[in-house]
Amino acid sequence: MKTLIVYAHPEPTSFTAALKDAAVRAVESAGHAAVVSDLYAEKFNPVAGRHDFLTVADAARFHYQTEQAFASRNRGFAPDIRREQDRLADAGLLILVFPLWWGGVPAILKGWFDRVCAYGFAYADGKRFENGYLRGRRALCAITTGGTAARFSADGSYGEMRHVMHGVRRCMLEYLGLEVADPFVAYAAPRVDQARRIEYLRDWEGRIAGVLNDGEWTARCSQPDQRLAQLQRNDMGEAGWSQPR
Amino acid sequence: MKTLIVYAHPEPTSFTAALKDAAVRAVESAGHAAVVSDLYAEKFNPVAGRHDFLTVADAARFHYQTEQAFASRNRGFAPDIRREQDRLADAGLLILVFPLWWGGVPAILKGWFDRVCAYGFAYADGKRFENGYLRGRRALCAITTGGTAARFSADGSYGEMRHVMHGVRRCMLEYLGLEVADPFVAYAAPRVDQARRIEYLRDWEGRIAGVLNDGEWTARCSQPDQRLAQLQRNDMGEAGWSQPR
Repeated sequence: MKTLIVYAHPEPTSFTAALKDAAVRAVESAGHAAVVSDLYAEKFNPVAGRHDFLTVADAARFHYQTEQAFASRNRGFAPDIRREQDRLADAGLLILVFPLWWGGVPAILKGWFDRVCAYGFAYADGKRFENGYLRGRRALCAITTGGTAARFSADGSYGEMRHVMHGVRRCMLEYLGLEVADPFVAYAAPRVDQARRIEYLRDWEGRIAGVLNDGEWTARCSQPDQRLAQLQRNDMGEAGWSQPR
Repeated sequence: MKTLIVYAHPEPTSFTAALKDAAVRAVESAGHAAVVSDLYAEKFNPVAGRHDFLTVADAARFHYQTEQAFASRNRGFAPDIRREQDRLADAGLLILVFPLWWGGVPAILKGWFDRVCAYGFAYADGKRFENGYLRGRRALCAITTGGTAARFSADGSYGEMRHVMHGVRRCMLEYLGLEVADPFVAYAAPRVDQARRIEYLRDWEGRIAGVLNDGEWTARCSQPDQRLAQLQRNDMGEAGWSQPR
């Protein structure tokens, strides 16, 4: 089974990078294949726009979902989006590795969702959540924070991590139909000592092994061609696509 | 008093654009000045990186907050960041106008926070939340959604809007010290009819007028030079800046 690791950090020697490398190790140790989308290294452009498309549905007025729906029916996505879509379509497990910036994902990772997870490809009317195209697959996040765990508690200044992560979990990952594991959080990553960091890496690898240690599921998710075909048959859902006013 | 409107939508004829124009009207009708950061029109780059800085604190290893702290002490921010920082420093009211994409702000707006609200400029150790540099100022969001209000309720598929917006409210705006009003949400904006849209615009202008209708507060926030000086005196907080390992 293939795992797609979408990784967003500008510094290759960062602890976030070490978590990405640990994820690759854990996936490969479990006998599976890992593909890394290193958004900074690939200079991924996170800004949604006309440049997302080779096709044009409406030259006069840019409505993003209309252009996405049209592109998904006409193989009209720009090469960088197409590449990421192929990687996502091929993956049984999606792992996001990122530092928490302003209570969310870095802009470069937000733009990966905005652009890659396009209408008609990754979701459609009636194809969301329990009916999502990616149902049956799993997602897992590894997050580094500057703040301590106490700051992400009910009494902490940021509020509980489950509230901070609500948008990512519910409105991104579960929206796509993914089964989302609780995030792995390396709290106060820039402040802890080397021993704690090694412990973080070991725990993180263990979390991945735990998710992958389900032979029935990984076997089910090991048929990329079938999944690709499902994603690319352009089933726009029972409601179809209605052009907004 | 000046109001900064940070606006993020790729289409000038969108309803989100109409909300931005309505915000300008409402601010000016109340006798104040509006400045618009039109992130798409200005081709704002949301990706944090070395290009943020004219200065270099550590050429071997890129640690973002270290570079931000160094740049804030040495006037080392790149011109696009400096421009936005000057606008923010000058504003008593910050208004964000954006479509809700994947339960959050579009990448181009996320990157505005990542890059502009830099360590040493917009916050520092001990200068967050009730001690934030922007305390005394206010923030207000106008959000367009594809989903109906029911989808953003306790029983709705996305969960309550206050949970969806937790990261933006608590970890971005309140983090900076801003006093945050409840967001104005134009639910199902692409689906409602023209009469409902006109009602949305009127309600939104009323919300802004309500926030601005506080003469004591606007008078207090009408001294940009003093505020700029406060933000730019490079007070790194009682704890100072400790280089992470």
